Amino acid sequence: MGKSIKERILIPVSKKKRRITKNTSIKSGMKPGSLVYIGNLSDEKTEISIITYDELEFFEKKVSGVDKILKEPLKGVKWINVVGLRDVNLIENLGKEFGISNFTLEDVLNSNSRPKMDEYENYLFITSKHLSFEKSLNKLQGQQVSIIVGSDFVISFSETGSGIFEPILNRLKGSKGLIRKMGADYLAYALIDNIVDNYFVILENIEDSVDQLEEELIGKPKHETLMNIYTLKKELMLLRKSVWPLREVINCMWKGENQFIEKNTELYLRDVYDHVVQVIDTTELFVDIITGMLDIYLSSINNRMSEVMKVLTIFSTIFIPITFLAGVFGMNFKYMPELDFKWGYLIFWIIVLSISSFMLYTFKKREWF
Amino acid sequence: MGKSIKERILIPVSKKKRRITKNTSIKSGMKPGSLVYIGNLSDEKTEISIITYDELEFFEKKVSGVDKILKEPLKGVKWINVVGLRDVNLIENLGKEFGISNFTLEDVLNSNSRPKMDEYENYLFITSKHLSFEKSLNKLQGQQVSIIVGSDFVISFSETGSGIFEPILNRLKGSKGLIRKMGADYLAYALIDNIVDNYFVILENIEDSVDQLEEELIGKPKHETLMNIYTLKKELMLLRKSVWPLREVINCMWKGENQFIEKNTELYLRDVYDHVVQVIDTTELFVDIITGMLDIYLSSINNRMSEVMKVLTIFSTIFIPITFLAGVFGMNFKYMPELDFKWGYLIFWIIVLSISSFMLYTFKKREWF
Amino acid sequence: MGKSIKERILIPVSKKKRRITKNTSIKSGMKPGSLVYIGNLSDEKTEISIITYDELEFFEKKVSGVDKILKEPLKGVKWINVVGLRDVNLIENLGKEFGISNFTLEDVLNSNSRPKMDEYENYLFITSKHLSFEKSLNKLQGQQVSIIVGSDFVISFSETGSGIFEPILNRLKGSKGLIRKMGADYLAYALIDNIVDNYFVILENIEDSVDQLEEELIGKPKHETLMNIYTLKKELMLLRKSVWPLREVINCMWKGENQFIEKNTELYLRDVYDHVVQVIDTTELFVDIITGMLDIYLSSINNRMSEVMKVLTIFSTIFIPITFLAGVFGMNFKYMPELDFKWGYLIFWIIVLSISSFMLYTFKKREWF
Amino acid sequence: MGKSIKERILIPVSKKKRRITKNTSIKSGMKPGSLVYIGNLSDEKTEISIITYDELEFFEKKVSGVDKILKEPLKGVKWINVVGLRDVNLIENLGKEFGISNFTLEDVLNSNSRPKMDEYENYLFITSKHLSFEKSLNKLQGQQVSIIVGSDFVISFSETGSGIFEPILNRLKGSKGLIRKMGADYLAYALIDNIVDNYFVILENIEDSVDQLEEELIGKPKHETLMNIYTLKKELMLLRKSVWPLREVINCMWKGENQFIEKNTELYLRDVYDHVVQVIDTTELFVDIITGMLDIYLSSINNRMSEVMKVLTIFSTIFIPITFLAGVFGMNFKYMPELDFKWGYLIFWIIVLSISSFMLYTFKKREWF
Amino acid sequence: MGKSIKERILIPVSKKKRRITKNTSIKSGMKPGSLVYIGNLSDEKTEISIITYDELEFFEKKVSGVDKILKEPLKGVKWINVVGLRDVNLIENLGKEFGISNFTLEDVLNSNSRPKMDEYENYLFITSKHLSFEKSLNKLQGQQVSIIVGSDFVISFSETGSGIFEPILNRLKGSKGLIRKMGADYLAYALIDNIVDNYFVILENIEDSVDQLEEELIGKPKHETLMNIYTLKKELMLLRKSVWPLREVINCMWKGENQFIEKNTELYLRDVYDHVVQVIDTTELFVDIITGMLDIYLSSINNRMSEVMKVLTIFSTIFIPITFLAGVFGMNFKYMPELDFKWGYLIFWIIVLSISSFMLYTFKKREWF
Repeated sequence: MGKSIKERILIPVSKKKRRITKNTSIKSGMKPGSLVYIGNLSDEKTEISIITYDELEFFEKKVSGVDKILKEPLKGVKWINVVGLRDVNLIENLGKEFGISNFTLEDVLNSNSRPKMDEYENYLFITSKHLSFEKSLNKLQGQQVSIIVGSDFVISFSETGSGIFEPILNRLKGSKGLIRKMGADYLAYALIDNIVDNYFVILENIEDSVDQLEEELIGKPKHETLMNIYTLKKELMLLRKSVWPLREVINCMWKGENQFIEKNTELYLRDVYDHVVQVIDTTELFVDIITGMLDIYLSSINNRMSEVMKVLTIFSTIFIPITFLAGVFGMNFKYMPELDFKWGYLIFWIIVLSISSFMLYTFKKREWF
Repeated sequence: MGKSIKERILIPVSKKKRRITKNTSIKSGMKPGSLVYIGNLSDEKTEISIITYDELEFFEKKVSGVDKILKEPLKGVKWINVVGLRDVNLIENLGKEFGISNFTLEDVLNSNSRPKMDEYENYLFITSKHLSFEKSLNKLQGQQVSIIVGSDFVISFSETGSGIFEPILNRLKGSKGLIRKMGADYLAYALIDNIVDNYFVILENIEDSVDQLEEELIGKPKHETLMNIYTLKKELMLLRKSVWPLREVINCMWKGENQFIEKNTELYLRDVYDHVVQVIDTTELFVDIITGMLDIYLSSINNRMSEVMKVLTIFSTIFIPITFLAGVFGMNFKYMPELDFKWGYLIFWIIVLSISSFMLYTFKKREWF
Repeated sequence: MGKSIKERILIPVSKKKRRITKNTSIKSGMKPGSLVYIGNLSDEKTEISIITYDELEFFEKKVSGVDKILKEPLKGVKWINVVGLRDVNLIENLGKEFGISNFTLEDVLNSNSRPKMDEYENYLFITSKHLSFEKSLNKLQGQQVSIIVGSDFVISFSETGSGIFEPILNRLKGSKGLIRKMGADYLAYALIDNIVDNYFVILENIEDSVDQLEEELIGKPKHETLMNIYTLKKELMLLRKSVWPLREVINCMWKGENQFIEKNTELYLRDVYDHVVQVIDTTELFVDIITGMLDIYLSSINNRMSEVMKVLTIFSTIFIPITFLAGVFGMNFKYMPELDFKWGYLIFWIIVLSISSFMLYTFKKREWF
Repeated sequence: MGKSIKERILIPVSKKKRRITKNTSIKSGMKPGSLVYIGNLSDEKTEISIITYDELEFFEKKVSGVDKILKEPLKGVKWINVVGLRDVNLIENLGKEFGISNFTLEDVLNSNSRPKMDEYENYLFITSKHLSFEKSLNKLQGQQVSIIVGSDFVISFSETGSGIFEPILNRLKGSKGLIRKMGADYLAYALIDNIVDNYFVILENIEDSVDQLEEELIGKPKHETLMNIYTLKKELMLLRKSVWPLREVINCMWKGENQFIEKNTELYLRDVYDHVVQVIDTTELFVDIITGMLDIYLSSINNRMSEVMKVLTIFSTIFIPITFLAGVFGMNFKYMPELDFKWGYLIFWIIVLSISSFMLYTFKKREWF
Repeated sequence: MGKSIKERILIPVSKKKRRITKNTSIKSGMKPGSLVYIGNLSDEKTEISIITYDELEFFEKKVSGVDKILKEPLKGVKWINVVGLRDVNLIENLGKEFGISNFTLEDVLNSNSRPKMDEYENYLFITSKHLSFEKSLNKLQGQQVSIIVGSDFVISFSETGSGIFEPILNRLKGSKGLIRKMGADYLAYALIDNIVDNYFVILENIEDSVDQLEEELIGKPKHETLMNIYTLKKELMLLRKSVWPLREVINCMWKGENQFIEKNTELYLRDVYDHVVQVIDTTELFVDIITGMLDIYLSSINNRMSEVMKVLTIFSTIFIPITFLAGVFGMNFKYMPELDFKWGYLIFWIIVLSISSFMLYTFKKREWF
């Protein structure tokens, strides 16, 4: 599986356009367990950081190959953080070293995977989405994040190095607190907690957009308002698609009674679980609110059209009869006694004003304006 | 975690605008269990009342610090009622004194928490929403209310001191009835019952709004009617978001077989459970009714537009042909025999009236007016 | 709990307006188990009938107080039928005499209760709605009906004496059949069967309304049609709200293996259960049908508006060009050669007729009329 | 329960109008287990055929009374096929002879029953709907079909003799195949299989109607198209109401481990179960498709209205300005220099044509035509 | 069951029109287990390939009859691949040889079957749909694919020979990898994996269509856009109908603990299961997105109509009053002082321009253009 093949594969996926179904189809026909990176976000280079820590010590090093990892004196908890998924060979070797199944690596490399947890004999595999919300576009951007938890190591994979695990790293470096005292399972929890907390940031951004749309609706809704409603709803549905399975994942970790999660950590996972449920609740609420907005928008348009129609009708019904009258007295019949009548013209205006007043009065009474 | 930080955190949250996602994001990146008040409703000061009672005696005292609580001679059931959540240090100390987990305190301080029940070794933690409905705005205002039940104490937290537990306090003071005879679990039940009963008040207010909207719909619906329908539906969805999990909470308390709820009190909790189910039922019913209103509103607008169109069409179709006729006889052709005909003008009017009558008759027959 | 208080409470509830949330809020803050009648339907007086029967004998007596009940020689099955719930004291005494919990009495007095079954040590409590459908208004009227089944007695409560249990009474009086041979549980079954059978009468009435609405829709739907659709849907949702929990109630009675229902009667309850499921099915079907009607109504309006627009457009597009032409030849330019041409006027008419014919032909081809 | 009563009961039910709620209400107040035929489809006469067969022999006889049945030499499997349900006495006697519960007979006679399976001590009772689809009316017609399976007999009831069990009879007569070798349970299976197979015929007919509606929609949808969509949706909902419970029925027969169904037959029932699930799937699919059609219809109307509006607007906006111009030059002001100008008339036409061309160009650019 | 009958049966099914309910009705009335091919896709000829392989050897042969199969020296895993289902006799013989139940063969021949898994004593039967998406028509085409797994053999059936199992065959031929080492269950897994992978290809195609529709919506939606939305939604519902039951099928295979699936293979099936869930998720997401599109489309039409109305109204309201004015001064009254006034004509134009400017200013302020 040389580099040239993978590059050929990546060409048809445009870098600008986000796709829901990343071209998973390229694997159709390959034998199961074939390792191909499916996605278009990954950084060009694959960078590996190796962090080891216990209550007393903390080491961090960037390494370029798997063999380098093995040379490191590994004490305490090992965290191997892989950023960028293009170097499939490197990841394959890493997997072999830690006894990771090819199925797992396949899921790591497939940026299209559904959040899930798989339990293997010697590790736990968790995959999820790390999302970010571009406010100007009302668009979500997501990357696949995978975490492998062993008895004394954690391997994390992310597509781009946008610093999603920065806060955890800082906590490890900075304090000698709880996170340094506890094991690999707590580190895994901290990483997941970090991902879930990020959903709250997204929801807050979405609420800003919702509030703004609401204001537009109360004011003067335009066609763009409608498109924004549509886009926001679509993004919420994408968000929902990422969060719902995550709930199941964390529930499994918490209650699943597996050997990699210790009793102490379970309490923390319950807390994350509560957060995910809250994210789901709020997402559903926003979906409902936005659906309601559509009705408002539609009837706003109808309302305005109705207003336009009224203006037209008022003008037409007032002027059409009197224009007819003017036309009558512009006729060239020989014998038209009114024309010779001295007060004829004055009477014409009196009639015209009477008709207009009567029409206006009628419309007023019907509350047309 | 000094005061200055918390104040910085609270600035971006406007005091006027209710937000669904209170800025939980400020905690993103903090270590789990960090205590920060998330919300914007809380009173400036944090006030603690300490109430102790048994069948014979009743004491009530406002205290300013946790050390004061410990000095009090505590007999019978202790109820510590905390109003206002800004003084995080105070709450942290209180927690330490009673052996409350940091997770619990975090939930107490997060006004964004989902109603839930957590069981700990030495206490039961229940959190819920206390809502109020501002009729003029059709808006719900909610605050987080948390209850911690131990073997012989109850700690209650609320964001503002709007007297939500006043009735319970009065019952404790006033009578020597059941509430004085029973334990901390009954007091917790009474507090929750109080919260649930309050939902009925809200539903009654909402029904008033629903009835008013219905009357507007039957009469002359305006654009504001639509906005009111939208707002009311949104509030109902917020209400639903608060009540659904509460059902699970009370179900867990009732059936959960935990050591803090005695058999006697379970019967009372079943009663509260029935009430919550009824609140949910009614909420869902109102949501359905309001959804139906939207259809009525939309077709009302269409109906009225249709009426306007008819008026325009009737006027136009009557006057357009006869105006043309008047135009014809106003032409300046040299050779137009009709003009010289003596009865020409009279015949013109006869034709005009015939056409008009025929048109009117046709519209009448089609039931256009 | 004197009479004066209760009357004060009842005043704000209008007798004419049905409310979904009867003012349950008046109990907010009262201690649990307080007995207050919540509702506005109940007869002024509370009447108690006491019926005792076995296979051989049958007695019936109206009594005015609980002490009177005790004096009666009670043999066989005792049925105490209470009509009207205003005399709370009387009901409280009755409850004491038969060992009824205050919770039960509270539910009996709350006309807002959700249908449910509670099992107590010495009796079974069932509460449900007895509905009636006022065809002219398309409105459901409901009253709370409660049944308490003990080992050898049945107490039934209803808000008004509209003879809802008449048929059962007649069967007891008239025949010496099964109902006289079997115990209190069979009597309770008969009462519930009677309530469920009544739902079929309501569904038949609703189907009549549905059929009528359908005919209106096929004919000329008016704004009232829409309001009727809305009202009927709302009533169906209220009906659904009453029937769904009833299903659970009867399921519990049938399968709940409690001591008050004998094996023989279970078979009968299965039959009632089937009926309730059928009522639910039909209700849901009607809801779906009525929802479909709304779409028909909306597009009927649109259709008709479209027709109006066509008439306007046909008239306008035919006359507007020729009116312009007439206007042209009415101009007073010095040099207009056509005016002096002898056949000018004739040619004018030829042109006018050609244009009109062409327009009509075009509209005909487009199937506009 | 004489004949006169039943006839009185049947009068209000029109023979032409299908009702969803057949007048079940007539039983309201009767004692449970009263036998009354509820329905309006049944043939005037009640005909009973008695068929007995084993692997070697086959007898068929029409009998007029129950006593006749008993006289027959019954060997092998007995199939009593009852067509027409008006002769309640006959059916009651038949029931007594075979030890059928009154509850069962009540369900047999109630053409309104929901499909269900009841297990009794000495037989299994299955009731279902046999539907037919009248293509010209897009209407389903249904009749109640009931099957009682004992250890060596099957009794089948149907409302009309439209030959629904003809194919089974022919198979029994014609071949000496499996059906002749196996017991009463296999016969019952064959009857049910026959009913389910019939649903496929209905679905095919409905798909024809769906296809036809789709073609109408793509072409020129009329108001009738809408009514057809509505009717078809309603019929699908009725179909769904019949099929959903049938699934449960067959599931119960298959997995219910009752004594009347032998292991061999269970495999066949699994096959029928698969068919019912498929019928449900397809029904739901059609409901969804038809719901989608409504949206198409609605926007078709809107589209066409939009077209009409464009025609009107194009004509109006072109002619209104130039008609005004013609009006100006028809004014009788003394001092109007243009009128005396020699090329005035020509310039007038040049202006008119310029305005018209400009308008047309603008509309063209906006793609209005 | 001769050929002539089958051909007669196949005639009414048009080859061009896809039907959801293939004429299953032809089997209505036949005895259960009758073997008839139901469908219209199958190739004229039925071709059988027989492939045998183990770790060392690989044979492939096309055979014309079942007797030929038996003559082959069968070693290792046997894969009998049947393409085309018209030769019912051949399939019947094949079934007999391998001890396949008639029920299974019936399902194989019924291209209308719902995806399912049935477990028999000596084999496992799996049936599913293999779909393809014709992009130009937005249409799915599907064929029935059935797989029978025994202890050492796999029989696969497909309606047409469009090479759906080509990739598997190539992997068997090409490599001596895992697939050659493992048993019949792994082969079955590979076939199913192949089918599921194909769904991803379809989803990608559908996303292309969705994206294209979205672009049309943002640009200028036409009536065809609407029809495409409708068609795509319909196809998605058909896709859903195929995929939902497949989930259950694979879940059953994975967790069902049957003797034909070995522990090793279960891990692979879990992987396929994940893929199916992902297909379902994405399908549901697309359904939701497309439903949202409809609302956009509808309000686009309304928006445009509103624009048209505004143009009409602006023109009409500006010109109608001034046309009336021109009409007034074209009247022939003897006594009209304005006409003789020298600046009359100039003043007329000043008035006309004032009115027009005022109207334009008003519309501008109302943001009508």
